[in-house]
Amino acid sequence: MANAEGSKLWGGRFVGDTDPIMEKFNASISYDQRMWDADIRGSKAYVKALEKAQLVSTDEMNSILNGMDQISEEWSKGVFVIKPEDEDIHTANERRLKELIGAPAGKLHTGRSRNDQVVTDMRLWLRDALSTLRESALQLVSTMVERAAIEVDVLFPGYTHMQRAQPIRWSHWILSHAVALSRDVERLQEINKRVNVLPLGSGAIAGTPFDIDRNLLCKAGFESPSLNSMDATSQRDFVLEFLFWASLCLTHLSKVAEDLLLYSTKEYSFITLSDAYSTGSSLMPQKKNADSLELIRSKAGRVFGRCAGFMMTMKGLPSCYNKDLQEDKEAMFDCFDTLHAVLQVTTGVMSTLKINSSVMEAALSPDMLATDLAYYLVPFREAHGISGKAVFTAESKNIALNQLTVEDLSSVSSHFGEDVASVWDYSSSVEQYSAPGGTAKSSVLAQIDHLRKWIEKTQAQ
Amino acid sequence: MANAEGSKLWGGRFVGDTDPIMEKFNASISYDQRMWDADIRGSKAYVKALEKAQLVSTDEMNSILNGMDQISEEWSKGVFVIKPEDEDIHTANERRLKELIGAPAGKLHTGRSRNDQVVTDMRLWLRDALSTLRESALQLVSTMVERAAIEVDVLFPGYTHMQRAQPIRWSHWILSHAVALSRDVERLQEINKRVNVLPLGSGAIAGTPFDIDRNLLCKAGFESPSLNSMDATSQRDFVLEFLFWASLCLTHLSKVAEDLLLYSTKEYSFITLSDAYSTGSSLMPQKKNADSLELIRSKAGRVFGRCAGFMMTMKGLPSCYNKDLQEDKEAMFDCFDTLHAVLQVTTGVMSTLKINSSVMEAALSPDMLATDLAYYLVPFREAHGISGKAVFTAESKNIALNQLTVEDLSSVSSHFGEDVASVWDYSSSVEQYSAPGGTAKSSVLAQIDHLRKWIEKTQAQ
Amino acid sequence: MANAEGSKLWGGRFVGDTDPIMEKFNASISYDQRMWDADIRGSKAYVKALEKAQLVSTDEMNSILNGMDQISEEWSKGVFVIKPEDEDIHTANERRLKELIGAPAGKLHTGRSRNDQVVTDMRLWLRDALSTLRESALQLVSTMVERAAIEVDVLFPGYTHMQRAQPIRWSHWILSHAVALSRDVERLQEINKRVNVLPLGSGAIAGTPFDIDRNLLCKAGFESPSLNSMDATSQRDFVLEFLFWASLCLTHLSKVAEDLLLYSTKEYSFITLSDAYSTGSSLMPQKKNADSLELIRSKAGRVFGRCAGFMMTMKGLPSCYNKDLQEDKEAMFDCFDTLHAVLQVTTGVMSTLKINSSVMEAALSPDMLATDLAYYLVPFREAHGISGKAVFTAESKNIALNQLTVEDLSSVSSHFGEDVASVWDYSSSVEQYSAPGGTAKSSVLAQIDHLRKWIEKTQAQ
Amino acid sequence: MANAEGSKLWGGRFVGDTDPIMEKFNASISYDQRMWDADIRGSKAYVKALEKAQLVSTDEMNSILNGMDQISEEWSKGVFVIKPEDEDIHTANERRLKELIGAPAGKLHTGRSRNDQVVTDMRLWLRDALSTLRESALQLVSTMVERAAIEVDVLFPGYTHMQRAQPIRWSHWILSHAVALSRDVERLQEINKRVNVLPLGSGAIAGTPFDIDRNLLCKAGFESPSLNSMDATSQRDFVLEFLFWASLCLTHLSKVAEDLLLYSTKEYSFITLSDAYSTGSSLMPQKKNADSLELIRSKAGRVFGRCAGFMMTMKGLPSCYNKDLQEDKEAMFDCFDTLHAVLQVTTGVMSTLKINSSVMEAALSPDMLATDLAYYLVPFREAHGISGKAVFTAESKNIALNQLTVEDLSSVSSHFGEDVASVWDYSSSVEQYSAPGGTAKSSVLAQIDHLRKWIEKTQAQ
Repeated sequence: MANAEGSKLWGGRFVGDTDPIMEKFNASISYDQRMWDADIRGSKAYVKALEKAQLVSTDEMNSILNGMDQISEEWSKGVFVIKPEDEDIHTANERRLKELIGAPAGKLHTGRSRNDQVVTDMRLWLRDALSTLRESALQLVSTMVERAAIEVDVLFPGYTHMQRAQPIRWSHWILSHAVALSRDVERLQEINKRVNVLPLGSGAIAGTPFDIDRNLLCKAGFESPSLNSMDATSQRDFVLEFLFWASLCLTHLSKVAEDLLLYSTKEYSFITLSDAYSTGSSLMPQKKNADSLELIRSKAGRVFGRCAGFMMTMKGLPSCYNKDLQEDKEAMFDCFDTLHAVLQVTTGVMSTLKINSSVMEAALSPDMLATDLAYYLVPFREAHGISGKAVFTAESKNIALNQLTVEDLSSVSSHFGEDVASVWDYSSSVEQYSAPGGTAKSSVLAQIDHLRKWIEKTQAQ
Repeated sequence: MANAEGSKLWGGRFVGDTDPIMEKFNASISYDQRMWDADIRGSKAYVKALEKAQLVSTDEMNSILNGMDQISEEWSKGVFVIKPEDEDIHTANERRLKELIGAPAGKLHTGRSRNDQVVTDMRLWLRDALSTLRESALQLVSTMVERAAIEVDVLFPGYTHMQRAQPIRWSHWILSHAVALSRDVERLQEINKRVNVLPLGSGAIAGTPFDIDRNLLCKAGFESPSLNSMDATSQRDFVLEFLFWASLCLTHLSKVAEDLLLYSTKEYSFITLSDAYSTGSSLMPQKKNADSLELIRSKAGRVFGRCAGFMMTMKGLPSCYNKDLQEDKEAMFDCFDTLHAVLQVTTGVMSTLKINSSVMEAALSPDMLATDLAYYLVPFREAHGISGKAVFTAESKNIALNQLTVEDLSSVSSHFGEDVASVWDYSSSVEQYSAPGGTAKSSVLAQIDHLRKWIEKTQAQ
Repeated sequence: MANAEGSKLWGGRFVGDTDPIMEKFNASISYDQRMWDADIRGSKAYVKALEKAQLVSTDEMNSILNGMDQISEEWSKGVFVIKPEDEDIHTANERRLKELIGAPAGKLHTGRSRNDQVVTDMRLWLRDALSTLRESALQLVSTMVERAAIEVDVLFPGYTHMQRAQPIRWSHWILSHAVALSRDVERLQEINKRVNVLPLGSGAIAGTPFDIDRNLLCKAGFESPSLNSMDATSQRDFVLEFLFWASLCLTHLSKVAEDLLLYSTKEYSFITLSDAYSTGSSLMPQKKNADSLELIRSKAGRVFGRCAGFMMTMKGLPSCYNKDLQEDKEAMFDCFDTLHAVLQVTTGVMSTLKINSSVMEAALSPDMLATDLAYYLVPFREAHGISGKAVFTAESKNIALNQLTVEDLSSVSSHFGEDVASVWDYSSSVEQYSAPGGTAKSSVLAQIDHLRKWIEKTQAQ
Repeated sequence: MANAEGSKLWGGRFVGDTDPIMEKFNASISYDQRMWDADIRGSKAYVKALEKAQLVSTDEMNSILNGMDQISEEWSKGVFVIKPEDEDIHTANERRLKELIGAPAGKLHTGRSRNDQVVTDMRLWLRDALSTLRESALQLVSTMVERAAIEVDVLFPGYTHMQRAQPIRWSHWILSHAVALSRDVERLQEINKRVNVLPLGSGAIAGTPFDIDRNLLCKAGFESPSLNSMDATSQRDFVLEFLFWASLCLTHLSKVAEDLLLYSTKEYSFITLSDAYSTGSSLMPQKKNADSLELIRSKAGRVFGRCAGFMMTMKGLPSCYNKDLQEDKEAMFDCFDTLHAVLQVTTGVMSTLKINSSVMEAALSPDMLATDLAYYLVPFREAHGISGKAVFTAESKNIALNQLTVEDLSSVSSHFGEDVASVWDYSSSVEQYSAPGGTAKSSVLAQIDHLRKWIEKTQAQ
């Protein structure tokens, strides 16, 4: 292995040989190369701190910075060549630097460990990823809110237990999902704070013995330096928080998908998906399948699986860096890619689907006003029970609830009068729910207004 | 079932009978009774809003308030009798209210659905639970910080990859865990904000048609009313966030436990657990097992299992209330109970264990200073490689690294001089790491100071 | 603690005191007491082996056997009194035995460790539990098969991607679930083999030094003794296999539930659930909710959560018994209880629901025969594409597929002739699928026949 | 999209366009191309059945078979060119076939749906994968057994609760893991039976209307045709079983890894890993880290995460094919690759590690014989308590247990005599455990013999 010496960061000691399967098992370059930019940015910040601490000369610093810029260009242009001995992106960039600038390259690693370097790179990468996701999520919320504003007058059945419950506005349904997603964005910003903590300067475990100015390093975009070097190099809370955050967000999106899948069945026929988000069948020529929605629904499982997997990997590990942590990156990348695609596809679906408003309104039925019938009877105590008996009477007679005569109703309770007819109007029904958060037009418009302001404020942050 | 009419909130319609296994399967009273107090508090707030909206008279309100106080007393004294038809805590309290005050009891449910009632109760309950956990977590952090302050001069090996890495302060190890737990407390406070949102007034799905003052209702301790009634009655983000939060916190505690389990083996012998947290063996009289630590380690699995389970239950559900949500409460209760016990036991363990500082210091060995030997060689580029060769030379000669003569070292590299002897001192080694977050005494004391102030500030909130 | 000496199996050494929270945290009696019978059976078998090995006298054996029978009776009658120092069921039974028969009780533990005792008890308990579940599952499959036999002539739409696909027999749908459950039963029997392995005689770790006849012990109902004492006392594969098995089975049942939930919506109206498996709404008098189905659907999450939790607990544990394993029992009990209830409720639902066959058949539509139209064109290569164009033509004209005239069809492809009319018959459509596993009557009856024979054979095992 | 018509199996109907992100989101070719061989084998079997049913002519069949062979060669040589419109491996192969043989290619899809095709391919692929894993697992078991045979005379401490418990043979430890892995192999063979079921001929949902001989198709290597077409096309039990099987197996390997990680610490120093399975540190020149073991330990999380994820995806899906199922393949491939690598690396580790038998034996201490001291006292009832008091006495005097004089022991119990000295011999201690499964030499050799025969028998299957 003498001739391979130096090709690995830990070269210089081993005399044995490595198993090729073990080499591959150990290497992360196949996936961590996508952090090339973060790795370069981290190294550039670090060499400046080294220069300030007089550990490299200004010339050496400039040489390293120039080399790094050249490497960056190679990656950008897709011409960077990965060599077999490049086990990870950090080794690859450093190996290339040495080829480009020679001797001074060796000094870049002074006082830096792969333990603090890798986690710094991950945080830089994730910060950008969170920013992208935030933007995509806001775009989806915005699409929903604007659609809700346009279609605010459409009524359709609200369901609980998958059974028709009460008439609601279609926009009220849209906003119920937009509100959930807005909470996701707020959570994202909380996580972001904790991603923006700088581990560089923590070494492998004990800290750095050099006069590295960690507050200066923070200026590369971090809010504050980490508090404890052992924790900094081995905690992956920020990854786990991200994985769970993505899972929760996708669970929300799986709910949107499930609703839309129901609404796009022949049986409901409330909506028609754009062909752009549907596919056909290899066997059945008449089929138009909402594959996009099924895929959206499915991804909550995939992403939560990543969260569960990495959580299990972390369970019971002893302190400080253990190689088990290498599971962090694929999980992080996969969850980002998946959620990013899902957010965009959901936005596409939501902005292109067509609603069949006449079918939606036709799905309303008088029994859905049984609650209103009960409310008509308030303040009588047994309002709910009386209304239930009216429903039962109508069912026994096999007629709609609003076809019960005043006599029929009187036989159920003496509290019913002629004015009960006023109950049987879906538009007036929904207008009753004007308290904050309700389905009356004023209340729905207030939700729209609230979310528009929230989007504006959030985008400005 | 005629005679059972009214015994269920949804009585008044069904003529069939129910399967006893189904009854039991459906009932939640066996576990949700622990929310009795939250349920009563919620109802008391609600009746005041009803009175303000003139849906009950002042007399009726007072009667209900008095009845509720009486029920509260029965629960407190443990004399409340659950009847077979009480399927959940809400039915039980309402049934009892009717027994106590008669007719007006029926009006308490005006405009309220079990959908908004149950989630209001859960939020009230969880708010108190979070407050308890926050206190327990702060107590543990405080115990750790004070112990770290006292034992700041003890050195022992820091490990990475379970291999001795560099000498560190014992207090630096303690603080690495305290810092992680302080992040948990910060996350808890973020979750708390989202727990403190009032769903009451959302009805079953569409909102409330009455003039219920939702902002007034908030004064029962909530920060703001929910934004959308469909979302409010069926989102369980706050439960999922709590379950994940508890899982992450327990993963941190599993790491504390794993470290301490290692340190309490015969092989390490760094610490001795108090008998209060150890047990013996039924077969082997000499055994003293750290059962407390094994239990702590195990609970991360249990609690994350609850999180995974409820997440899976939520996946793909359509909008609004579905009975599947009933899985929320047992998960929430179990995670609270488990984490509460673990935090207290961990505090007990941390405050009573004895360290064997002489064993800890004896475990330090010269090869752990190989990094320092490399630092001695900085700014020479190949510092790490040269130090590696020195390690190899010492191993070949089967002597300790610090037993290499200056001649030995010179044959490795001409950069070694007489002053290399200064490297072989553990105390000066750790003192080098004085940058923020490092293991030098000043840096460790700064961490202690930081955490003490943080605890004070957090307790004051 | 002197006076408590002997009250714990590991008494005799400790001088410290225990933390009450730790005591409670450590104790398992609150849940493991349900293994009282398995514990007694295990001890009775063990004392016979001790007698054979001349480690207890025949008199002592008889005294122990009588004492155990008395304890068994106390448990059966619900009069067994658990004392505060009874930390688990094993301690409780042994403490009681000592009270009842005095001195000889102490010998029962000779050569036995709690490590091999507890896992023996679990296996005895689980064996009975699996037998119960097998019976319940067979009852459900049988209910399905017999229902399928009766309603074999009912046609309705088969769905893929939640879109109407092809006409199928209702019984074909039922059998698709019955077949999945029959695989579950077969898996159960495989697990059972591995549950039926005897760990007793493995001691705490090294085996037993006494002349205990492990093959004799097996006669208590085990198939063979375990192969390695270290593995035997600490492997919990049989628990994990059971938890996963239950999860997979519940995932199948969640699919049954989801289908039935869809079919019981107003929109589908294919089935009506018995009132015994429905509940009403506290707010909406007209609602009849399929709570039973929602609960069934939800339990897959709960049970898989237990599996995930215990799996995570087991991950990375070192060899041999660790207290972490104590998480095994609650998971096992909860999964049994849950699945047992779900199987019974599903059987109840399946045997009492009413189908609305006229609605089901009315839901069939000509476009579902587009595949048949394509088959009509076979062996022409572009059959699928041509049929697709016919669908498109019908949609463009806004007419049903079977309303296209022969001229219309001819303009799409010259391969269509007058006999195309024969395609538009749902009954003949399904009859085409007569290959094994298809939806033709003969094929469905063959499935019924196959499953009936399988049930008979399985019950006889 | 007119010009792309036919480029998708479901072409011929859509007039809209697709979103490029949706296209990518929907496509599976990037990962399912590794099933190219299974897809070709499945198609070749299918075309023969088509010919037998006279749906293609013999010439057409031969043309298709030749075309398929040519495609196979292209894949083998790495020259197959994937085109942008190839959304999955099935489309790719069929598109290429059309290019090669023209018109007859269109007939291959007669009566076949992508639903039954894809699951047939997966089963063919998985069958081979299981065979590979079985071989790798057997190789590992064999390595363990042969090592156990060679090192049968080495004694070292057995641990429970991570505390030294009793002296055991090193080979007994090895075999405890081998026995667990042999159970994994047995489980694998059970799963294999259920993988070997043929879904082809199930169409999209209803079966096949053609005279396809499904029993003939089975001859391609399946045991029996599937029973129900709806179940056959959408059940993924075999995938879930595989994912869980792999997770359980990896949990066993995580235990091996954890033990070896402990044994390779400086503190234990029982073993030395080959350099081939170790790596160094980028910062600390003296470090030799057991990265291989940490990676092995970590993978249980990764793989179980896949299982949890796909389980969650499956939860609550309605019957028959839904696009959600597309999550099956990446999970399956990743678990195979991971487990395959782990099995090979573990075999490498186990066959190359060096044991330090003198250190292992020196770690035995007299207190580990306290159980033997208790056994010495059998049949006296309070044997365990007396031995415990002896341990306490020795600890109080700060001497080793075997340094207690007969007088010391007599003061603890009158049952001790001069012959107590015979207890203090580790070799005779282990030889007591000669019952099946124990750590005596005869018993360990019997385990070796048993496993050797089992390996032979299993390899022959």
